Formats: sequence, structure tokens, C-alpha cells
Amino acid sequence: MSQAPEYDVVGVGNALVDVIAHADDHFIEHHELVKGSMTLVDTDRALYLYRALGTAVEMSGGSAANTMCGVASLGGRAAYLGKVSDDELGNVFGHDLRAVGVQFRPGAPEADTPTGRCIIVVTPDAQRTMNTYLGVSSLLQPTDIDEATVAAGKVLYMEGYLYDRPAAKEAFRHAAAVAHAHDRQVSLTLSDSFCVDRHRADFRRLVTDQVDILFGNEDELRSLYEVETLAEAIAAVRNDCHLAVVTMGAQGCAVISRSEVVTVAAEPVDQVLDTTGAGDLFAAGFLFGYTRERPLAECAKLGAIAAAEVISHVGPRPLVALKSLLP
Amino acid sequence: MSQAPEYDVVGVGNALVDVIAHADDHFIEHHELVKGSMTLVDTDRALYLYRALGTAVEMSGGSAANTMCGVASLGGRAAYLGKVSDDELGNVFGHDLRAVGVQFRPGAPEADTPTGRCIIVVTPDAQRTMNTYLGVSSLLQPTDIDEATVAAGKVLYMEGYLYDRPAAKEAFRHAAAVAHAHDRQVSLTLSDSFCVDRHRADFRRLVTDQVDILFGNEDELRSLYEVETLAEAIAAVRNDCHLAVVTMGAQGCAVISRSEVVTVAAEPVDQVLDTTGAGDLFAAGFLFGYTRERPLAECAKLGAIAAAEVISHVGPRPLVALKSLLP
Repeated sequence: MSQAPEYDVVGVGNALVDVIAHADDHFIEHHELVKGSMTLVDTDRALYLYRALGTAVEMSGGSAANTMCGVASLGGRAAYLGKVSDDELGNVFGHDLRAVGVQFRPGAPEADTPTGRCIIVVTPDAQRTMNTYLGVSSLLQPTDIDEATVAAGKVLYMEGYLYDRPAAKEAFRHAAAVAHAHDRQVSLTLSDSFCVDRHRADFRRLVTDQVDILFGNEDELRSLYEVETLAEAIAAVRNDCHLAVVTMGAQGCAVISRSEVVTVAAEPVDQVLDTTGAGDLFAAGFLFGYTRERPLAECAKLGAIAAAEVISHVGPRPLVALKSLLP
Repeated sequence: MSQAPEYDVVGVGNALVDVIAHADDHFIEHHELVKGSMTLVDTDRALYLYRALGTAVEMSGGSAANTMCGVASLGGRAAYLGKVSDDELGNVFGHDLRAVGVQFRPGAPEADTPTGRCIIVVTPDAQRTMNTYLGVSSLLQPTDIDEATVAAGKVLYMEGYLYDRPAAKEAFRHAAAVAHAHDRQVSLTLSDSFCVDRHRADFRRLVTDQVDILFGNEDELRSLYEVETLAEAIAAVRNDCHLAVVTMGAQGCAVISRSEVVTVAAEPVDQVLDTTGAGDLFAAGFLFGYTRERPLAECAKLGAIAAAEVISHVGPRPLVALKSLLP
């Protein structure tokens, strides 16, 4: 018998500091970037792109870390597992988690590998194109997973991005096993459609075997099942996992369970300035409601509210306490 | 006979990365901060305040560096002299100068002292309260002043903040002497009224002997001459230097020469979000016009346009190319 959970959500992901700069479409073309995607880059490419970029702003990011900050900002209890270095950006990352009340479990220290960073180019259409230098975040391994923390969370939330490194993938599977051993639920975000392309077979198995709640956007879900339409993807996913939550940008979202498909509209936004963090914060709002056993439509509405806040400014985390935006 | 100047403005100042967070008035009171001021803090106090603060954003700052970025953003040619370390924040600082086309002359490297940072607390009234850990920036000394760069600038622009450290003060006086030896003009910003309090006698002598163009706000100018009213301060300063430019927030500014006082209104702003950088960017616009020999009223108008841009968003540097805002 498990103890009462201490956390609503425990996140595991690549711990990254975002380096955000604005650029035009010419920059995207000239540097052969794929708009809207996340590309893994090595040190040289990261330095090259950084040099080419204009004035940048540094702020803590990382998909699952953004989500945990969203959960905490809504008034939930969250913990985060991910690796940073003992350098200035690592300190920034840790500070910003603790500052909103997220418990941070950074795993074992590693020498000589800097904190990871994600170079984000925001184009005038508010789309973000990400180039990630994983740094020490990619050294996450099973021994870095604090089992007591995972056991203490109602829902475990993990990034598909973790699948890009073998040791991190093992850590991911280990965390999922620990969660299930303690009767917790396991959720996964597919992260991006290129990530799904890289790991389709693995993700399909994972969704069937270990995932209780799946998050993804339309492209990611269609890519997962290699189908043309969202309707086909929905038909496929509802047999595979307990709950799937599909975001569709301005078209809102659909929550798919075996018994029903609930659709909820997006929240109105005066001006979309930067879509970075939209999916992360949607998941935060949804999971906040879910761990409080709210109806699915209300969970989705909470996700929409959190996402609307984060896309109305530059940066992947809320600028206001999200609980002040609750209806 | 001097060569034609390569730069419009050469700036010298404390090279700092800003760590910006929002907090309420309770935070200001609880931590005994003086709203609107800049306080020098040691490592322990910097760490303490940082720990107490919420989610922060890191972006390059430093008063004179902000001004040089403004000059470059307007289409001017600018160079900057200031010290950073070979650490992550030092790299960020250098990147953000070069990214807008400012020539960066960081001086000789120093070991074991990190890049300086300025912890900025922005309150709901958009005021900024600064706590500066100078780090390596305070080690600026005369040998760090690249004389060829100073000689190549029409106007030298320096921060009063430099006077907080003896070696930097020497560097300041040396740079001014080099500039005058090459028939260049020397400008000074008084930085803040507490800084004027700390160095009143020095500043008075400096303004009389070495400063051609003085920048300051109303409080700073009144503090400089220890007078009650702006009118008295104006009467005093017009005998002391060629040109004084007094900013008065939403009331606009006054440009004071021996022959006239020109007043110019502030530019309208939809919403003032963060006044950090307002004075710095005002100086940038003014000096951009001045080095192009525009009438004083037009110089002030350019200053007002640049300041309006920077107070309408969080952060001390322009988010758009300022030249796109020129009339």
C-alpha cells in the first residue's frame, strides 16, 4: 500500500536554459533551420548559431521543467528531476525552479560538461525554432532518478525528448516502472513530430505498455500512427492508452478516452508573441485539474488558460501566478 | 590633427548582466531596499537576494553598455570598454554587444572574479530597484582603456557608477584625458542620486573641468548642487559645462546650454512596464542626434523615442531596431 502522494506531478526531462532571440524568416532559411521544430546540435553548431543571432535573453526552460513550474504556479505541488552543472546557467535553472516552489532533484553531479541550453529563434509569426545543445542534461541515467520522489507523485510526467539519449531513455523507463510499482500514473509528452519520427516504434510500444496519459499535438499524433487525418489518429490512440490529450493550437484541444472525445476551445489571446512553452503549460493546467479529479473538460480548460498566458509574452514560463487566472 | 572619427560614441562603464525579477512592495520593504536606487552589494548579499527572488530573466545590461546598444540600434557607430570574465555571463554580455554591432574592448583578462551582475527588482509601478554585485567589472583600470578606441570616438560617454571604485575612477579620468587630447568631447551620466551623494565633490570638479555634456535626472542634478529646485540646479549647471541634459520622466526633458534651455515632451507610451534603461536609452538617442549635428530639440526628441521603446517592455535594451522608429 502506497502512502498519500506528496506531489501532484513529478516531471523528468532535459534541464535546459533557453537563449531566446528574435529573427526573421531569412535567418531561418539562411541557416537551414526547420521552423517550429527542435533540432539537437553539437557545441560547434550551438556556438555558430549563437554568434549569428542578435540580442538574446536567457531564461530557464526545458519542456517538463516548464510544465512543473506551471503546476506550481497554479497552486499544485510539483517536483522535477533533471541534470544541470555547477555553472552559472545551472544555478539559474535551479533558482527558477525553487523560486516557484518546485522541488528540484538534480541527480549526481558530473564534471566538465556545462548546463544544457536551447537556442530559440522566435520569428515574427510567433513560431519558435529550437536548437538544443543538451550538455549535462543528456547524462541523465537511471541512478539519477530519485525513487522516493517518483513514488511520492500522483502523476509522473516525462518528455519524449529524453528518448534522444540511450542512458536517459533507460532513466525514463526506470522512472515509469517505479511510478507504476507505487500505483502512480505515467504521462508522456511526445515533444515534437521530428522526435516522434526518430523514435516511432519505441513510442508506440511505450504508449501501449507504460503510458496512462499521452500529450501531443495533431502533427505528433498523426506521425505516431503514420496516418493522414486526426480522426484516424484518434481511433488508433484510444485503443492504446487510458487518456490522450491532443492540442490543436488556436483550434483548442481534444481529450480522448475510451468512452468519449471531449473538445475544448482555446482561450482568446490579444496578441500571440511567442508560442514557446504553449504545449508545456497546457499540460500543466490539464494535470493540475486531473490530479484534483476535475471533469476532463475542466482539465482541458485549465490547460487552455495556462497556455494562453505563456503565448502572450516572450518566454516559456508564466509571468504571473497562474492561480490568479483561475475562473 | 586627429583623424576622422571611426565611432560616434565610445562608452565606458561597469559591464553587468541584469537578473530581472518582479516583486511587490512588500519584498522591497522586507529586504530593506530603497526603491528606484542602485545599491552596491557583496557576494553574500547578492546570493541572499537572488535566493529570495522569484523567477528571473537574465539579459545583458550595464548603463553605458545599454546606451551603446541604443546608439547602434539607431544606426550609429559605437564602441564599449568594460570588463567581463571568461564565464557564461561574460560570454552573454559580449555576444549581446556584438550582436547589435557594438565594438567591444573588454580590457585585460582577470582570473577568479566572475562577471558582474545587477539584480533588478521590478515593482508593479514599473520602478526598478537595483542591487549590483560588480564582480570583475570593478577591476577596470587605466591600462584597460584602449586609447585608440577612445581617440576614434566623437563623444566619450561614461557612467558616474565608475566612481565607486578607485581604479575605475582613474580609468575614467584617463579616458577623459585621452579624449580631450584628440579633440573629442566627454560626456558623463550622473547614474543615480545616491551615486551623486557618494561623490559630490569629485563630480562637481569633473563637471567643471572635464565634462562637455552632462546627463542626469532632476534628483541627480539637484543633489549635485545641493539645491531645492530644478531652476536653481539649471542656473548652476549652465555655468559649469557646455551642455546639460536633464530628464524628468513623464515630464520630458530640458537641454541646457549657456544660451538657452530647450524643453521637449516625453513620447507617449501605452503602458510603462519597466523603467530600467530609460535614462540609458535617452542618452543614446540624444547622442545619436548630437553626433549628427542635429538641433538640440531634435536630439532630445530622439532620446525620448528611444526611452519610450525601452520602458514599454521588460529589459534595459531595445527589442526592435530603433532606427525603424525614427520619424
